[in-house]
Amino acid sequence: MPVNLSLPDPAELHPVAGVRLGVASAGIRKGGRRDVLVVALDRGSEVAGVFTQNAFCAAPVQICQAHLAAKPEGGIRAWVVNTGCANAGTGEQGLTNARKTVEFLAAELNLQPTQVLPFSTGVILEHLPMDRLLPGIQVACTGLGQANWLEAAQAIMTTDTQPKAFSTRQIINGQQVTITGISKGAGMIRPNMATMLGYVATDAAIERPLLQRLVQQAADESFNAITIDGDTSTNDSFVVAATGAGGLRLRSEQDAGWSEFRQAFIGVCRALAQAIVRDGEGATKFITIQVRQAASREEARQVGYAIAHSPLVKTAFFASDPNLGRILAAIGYSGVPQLDVTRIQVFLNEILVAEHGGRAAAYTESDGQRVMQQSEITVSVNLNRGHHEASVYTCDLSHEYVSINADYRS
Amino acid sequence: MPVNLSLPDPAELHPVAGVRLGVASAGIRKGGRRDVLVVALDRGSEVAGVFTQNAFCAAPVQICQAHLAAKPEGGIRAWVVNTGCANAGTGEQGLTNARKTVEFLAAELNLQPTQVLPFSTGVILEHLPMDRLLPGIQVACTGLGQANWLEAAQAIMTTDTQPKAFSTRQIINGQQVTITGISKGAGMIRPNMATMLGYVATDAAIERPLLQRLVQQAADESFNAITIDGDTSTNDSFVVAATGAGGLRLRSEQDAGWSEFRQAFIGVCRALAQAIVRDGEGATKFITIQVRQAASREEARQVGYAIAHSPLVKTAFFASDPNLGRILAAIGYSGVPQLDVTRIQVFLNEILVAEHGGRAAAYTESDGQRVMQQSEITVSVNLNRGHHEASVYTCDLSHEYVSINADYRS
Repeated sequence: MPVNLSLPDPAELHPVAGVRLGVASAGIRKGGRRDVLVVALDRGSEVAGVFTQNAFCAAPVQICQAHLAAKPEGGIRAWVVNTGCANAGTGEQGLTNARKTVEFLAAELNLQPTQVLPFSTGVILEHLPMDRLLPGIQVACTGLGQANWLEAAQAIMTTDTQPKAFSTRQIINGQQVTITGISKGAGMIRPNMATMLGYVATDAAIERPLLQRLVQQAADESFNAITIDGDTSTNDSFVVAATGAGGLRLRSEQDAGWSEFRQAFIGVCRALAQAIVRDGEGATKFITIQVRQAASREEARQVGYAIAHSPLVKTAFFASDPNLGRILAAIGYSGVPQLDVTRIQVFLNEILVAEHGGRAAAYTESDGQRVMQQSEITVSVNLNRGHHEASVYTCDLSHEYVSINADYRS
Repeated sequence: MPVNLSLPDPAELHPVAGVRLGVASAGIRKGGRRDVLVVALDRGSEVAGVFTQNAFCAAPVQICQAHLAAKPEGGIRAWVVNTGCANAGTGEQGLTNARKTVEFLAAELNLQPTQVLPFSTGVILEHLPMDRLLPGIQVACTGLGQANWLEAAQAIMTTDTQPKAFSTRQIINGQQVTITGISKGAGMIRPNMATMLGYVATDAAIERPLLQRLVQQAADESFNAITIDGDTSTNDSFVVAATGAGGLRLRSEQDAGWSEFRQAFIGVCRALAQAIVRDGEGATKFITIQVRQAASREEARQVGYAIAHSPLVKTAFFASDPNLGRILAAIGYSGVPQLDVTRIQVFLNEILVAEHGGRAAAYTESDGQRVMQQSEITVSVNLNRGHHEASVYTCDLSHEYVSINADYRS
């Protein structure tokens, strides 16, 4: 059961002018569930994305990167997503299938193939069932509509227990602007550049270089700050469309309204990323790890991820057991050079747990116990050696994680 | 239940001339179990060790390193080990307690404090119960004897389900030589330099510089090649004594008998290290990961550990599910630069699973299924980009691991 994650309310998922979505049940892996999503963007949209750094990156990721780099005449105008098969570890045949997929959708929508981005998620090392995928794309195209964001969020789910979608509508610089996004992912989550499928659209007009910088910044503060099991997927993709159908126009960081827009945009991305952790496989607790006063942001992230990836720390959270020495051990092996452990302070929510290389004098087991029983816990680590900080979001490690991943393909 | 790990047969644990062992039940954490070990070495012994690289290294580890560096007159002559409390994350008070411990044992055995090495294992962030530990040491000293290796192996167990001890007696260069060792550790196992408590003694005479090189080489091929959960302990220690009470004398790598001795010695260390994995928390399978034709040994280890630490790979082994794309994903995110995935071959035992960036043409799911059901599995990865190799030993991730670590302190 997800940790404090509400089901999206369709009435609060604002359509984005210039974006139409359609879904289908193609039976890619299992029947009776939506598993194909087509997104069509109006002329004039700008698109930018960041993708997995995994060397075994999937065929569709390779095609996405090539099409974005090609800057096709008329721009990127459509995305197609399938679940059930990742089309990763599939060699030449995988690339051929991904190309056939975009050619098929391009023909349906009267576009050039390079104007289409393909995405896949699911089991690795298996080929796409083209005989079922292509008819599914055809069905999805017949149902394209602006109001289908919730259906889209459902269509990209794999082991997710609920759809993830967030939306905001605000007046910025006198113009109404809408930002709506969806995400999926519940295991194999340790994004490196981006996450396993996040899509955000806005009706603001944003020039491509600025949009690309925004995607990178937003990824760093959202999808690139979460981890469930430390496994970086072969298919991570985070893609953004700015349709320009609304009145807000942004060309540079100096433009009026930029900072409000940036904040609203990153807010939606962060909610989508945290939703992935809240719905993490087997998660019973949502853990925020804040590392402060580090010598660099990279070192803060290194400490944060060492704690977030420790199976011992994660099982202690699952057990609500304040076995906090495991956090010290993780900090100690994080690999930060010349770490003076006598300067480090560790807090559990507001409780000072450790300092001077040992247990804090005022700390009591019952204080720790009280915090550990909550479903939202913040671990703060003060390294006392600089002025940088970073946050990492993760969940606990439960029996359910093992069950889900021992059974995933069956 | 440990994976293919027999109980040590006391008749096959050869005493090492010059080494006496004594144990006690001091009730450090729980009553009714042996939790203190004293090892006394005869005059003329040489001792060398390697220790955890964790920045939060325990107080006893700091004392060990200081005493070994001090090269005390008469050499190191005794060790004391307690379980139940790691004396890590204990600040100044922890160092004071470790010093009091060695002073007490030194007085009992009529030695200088610097001739004694202290070791602790158990819960982090708690102080040693000196009022119970010191009387326990006294009891252990009264029972010192050469035949107590099995009792010693029992006395250092924590979440281990069975004692770990191996021994060999051979004729090398015309001299009978004995090598006997014990180890413990079942969780928080990803040694970096050494493991959570391994002790090996031999009656060969080995000069200190040679012994130190041997310890390092042996650690690299045994304790430094295992992982259970990727958590590097605060207390890892691997210590070796060469008493010189036997006839074999070794001064340099050129001496007659050195290579046979080295091989026999590393064989005992490897058996002790692998026993830790076989008895890994919740382990149901023993997995060997061989990475070959790497550009460097470091890169081979990096790929091996990425696979060995992936919770998704480990749960697939637990489920006997040949979901082998998870192995490709782990190779892909291992961080090896410029990895050409089309050159990589992956084998499951003798079965070629993947090549040319995808599933091997002849591979069938039933072949994979057959291997995955075995209790000993070898994953071989051929990177095809160099001449270095490394092996990593690990186990699967089961429900039992979560249960053990969610309950550890209760």
